[in-house]
Order: sequence, then C-alpha cells, then structure tokens
Amino acid sequence: MRIAILIFDELTALDAVGPYEVLSRIPGAEVRFVAKEAGTKRTDTGALGLQADASLSELPDPEVLLVPGGKGNRPLMEDAEALDWVREAHERSTWTTSVCTGSLVLGAAGILDGKRATTHWAYLDRLSELGAEVVIERVVEDGKIMTAAGVSSGIDMALTLAANIGGETVAQAIQLGIEYDPDPPFDTGSPAKAPQELVDLIRASEG
Amino acid sequence: MRIAILIFDELTALDAVGPYEVLSRIPGAEVRFVAKEAGTKRTDTGALGLQADASLSELPDPEVLLVPGGKGNRPLMEDAEALDWVREAHERSTWTTSVCTGSLVLGAAGILDGKRATTHWAYLDRLSELGAEVVIERVVEDGKIMTAAGVSSGIDMALTLAANIGGETVAQAIQLGIEYDPDPPFDTGSPAKAPQELVDLIRASEG
Repeated sequence: MRIAILIFDELTALDAVGPYEVLSRIPGAEVRFVAKEAGTKRTDTGALGLQADASLSELPDPEVLLVPGGKGNRPLMEDAEALDWVREAHERSTWTTSVCTGSLVLGAAGILDGKRATTHWAYLDRLSELGAEVVIERVVEDGKIMTAAGVSSGIDMALTLAANIGGETVAQAIQLGIEYDPDPPFDTGSPAKAPQELVDLIRASEG
Repeated sequence: MRIAILIFDELTALDAVGPYEVLSRIPGAEVRFVAKEAGTKRTDTGALGLQADASLSELPDPEVLLVPGGKGNRPLMEDAEALDWVREAHERSTWTTSVCTGSLVLGAAGILDGKRATTHWAYLDRLSELGAEVVIERVVEDGKIMTAAGVSSGIDMALTLAANIGGETVAQAIQLGIEYDPDPPFDTGSPAKAPQELVDLIRASEG
C-alpha cells in the first residue's frame, strides 16, 4: 500500500507525523513524504525540519494520499501543479485524506464539492466556502474521502483508516503499540468544551 | 525557555513530534532538535527524516530536556558522550523528561536511581533493571523528572509540562489549538484493555 504524505514549508508537524506513526505500522505500508520539491521542509514554528524524500512527479499514483495542515498549505491552494497532482492522485487513489486545514487543499482542488468533510474547528467556514458539506465530527468519511478535524485528530483518523485497510485487529494492535490510551490533563480539546475566552483567543491567532 | 529534544537514527517520530507540537506553542519556548551530530535522522521505519539542527556540544544547557524512544536509542545507553551530556543537562535543567523508551536512556545515565518513572508498557522490566521505581501510569513526575508511557503519551506529558511551565490556561489553550479531544476508534490502547493475543504480539515485536 503506497501512502503519500504531502508536506510543505510551514506545515503543522503533528498533522503529518501522527498519521505517519499509525499508517507506517500497517503491514505492507510504504509511507513516503512528498513535496513540490524534495528536500527539507520547516514546520510552522520554524523549529523542526522534516525531509520530503520525493517530488510530486516522482509519486504520481499513491493508493493513500494524506494532506496535512498548517499555514504553509495556503499557497498550495493556488498552485496549479500541486492541485493537478492532488486531483490526479485522487482519481486513482483508494483513500484521499486530510488532517486539519489539509482539507482546504482538497477543497481548492475541487474534490470536496458536495462532499461531507471537516477541518480544524477555526476553519469550518472556510471549508464550507470551498464547496464541502461541513460536518463537525472528529473524523468524517464520504466514500473514499476521509477528513479529520484539527491537528491531533489525525491519529484517530489514521486508526480508522488502518482498520479499513488492514482490518480491525491490525488497527487495534497499532493502537496498543503506540499506547494510545489518551488521558489529557484538561478537557479543553474542542470549542464545545473549552472556555469561550480560549476559543476566542485561538480563533484570533488562527485567523 | 530553551527546550532540547534529543534525536537519533531509528527514533519513533511521534515520541518527539507529539511533545514538540505542544511545547513549541508555549509562549517564549525555543525548541531545538539536537543529536550527537547535527543532520538528518531517519525514523525507526526508515520512512521519515527529521532534522537535528544542533549537536550536543552546541546546546549544553537546555532548561527542558526531552529524550524520545525508539530502538535507535539503545546505542546511546552505552555512549559516554551522550550519557555525559544527559547527566550534565540534567544537573542544570528545570525539567528532565522522556517519552516511551527514552526513559531507558535517562536510566542508563544513572539519573533515575530510586526515582519514580515509567516507559512503554513492554519495557517496564527493563526500566526497573536500570534502578527506577517503576510506576504504571501514563505520566509520572518525581521532582523535576517527568516520564511518559509509550509513544502517544508524550502528548499528555507535554500538556502537563506546559501547565507547569506556562500555567494551566496556556496548556488548555494549546490543547484547544491542537484540537486534542481524543476519540480513538477502539479501546485497546493499554495492555490492561487490549486482548491478550495483541499484548503478546506487540511484546514479541518490541522485544
């Protein structure tokens, strides 16, 4: 199973690495990090470089495509080469997926028209403007398109994807392997649960 | 706040990137990825390269030290330069932390002697042999030493750390920003919850 994770400068690292950690453990999975140009991509904080091992043209036909979020993906929304690659990969893919604002790129490529999809909670309106039928859930499936909410939700999505690809036992074994028995110290992980002043704060910073 | 994440070839990416995503969002945080030698480190699957921007000698005095896990950290347990660096960083640190088998390196450095600590569930015996008082909890604090269980638990630890460093409101805002409202599709994330055959399977593969 050829899995391509599309990265770019100013990506949000956990959007990509959470799913990578799950998907790479599916037996037979071949995960590759791709970018417009191969090389090191710096994250949105500038503090980490992730290596893209292949350029888009070197990997035209992934079976699973994953687009992570981060402010650096906005330029891709107007980049003909990247959007063509996403569209063509989607035509042949088994799964086309995104984490966080990665779904904005899928939307810009025109493949979310009328499709149920989600994104980071601060970008739901933006996703709607791109033609998607926005759903406020952590992981949303519509046919072969699977989209996840903000950042950390990519882990939940990837486990769901792993169950679809390798079966439930494989996904459960991966969950045990990464000891994913989450126990956050607070219960402020969604705008429905967090104090309004924090929601306003994050919304202002995400813009 | 100078935060050093020690990486190495064959690391488990999420051990490092989960905490990075949280800690880098603390106001004033300066996260740096360090290694014995600067450069690209490949993860344990081989599918991803993470950039170490500094060598150990370039960053002798982090205020927060984090050691992730992955089979590639076993050589560090016998590496005098790395262990000296860990010991010296620990002497001056505000927090000395680990995720997953990263605590084995702290143990090898002699700084867990008689300390309450944890690690990935498949390595608890190994941690005990290194002198720690092993605790089966997701995040364990003993003075300024904070250790986390397997892989994904680094996110919970980092939020706990963020609350200690920046205050609870900062940690809660970060949790909301990364939409960490986990909803795993299965409940098999710990050996106490997973079927025994999966526990045996993962234990055999972790060795």
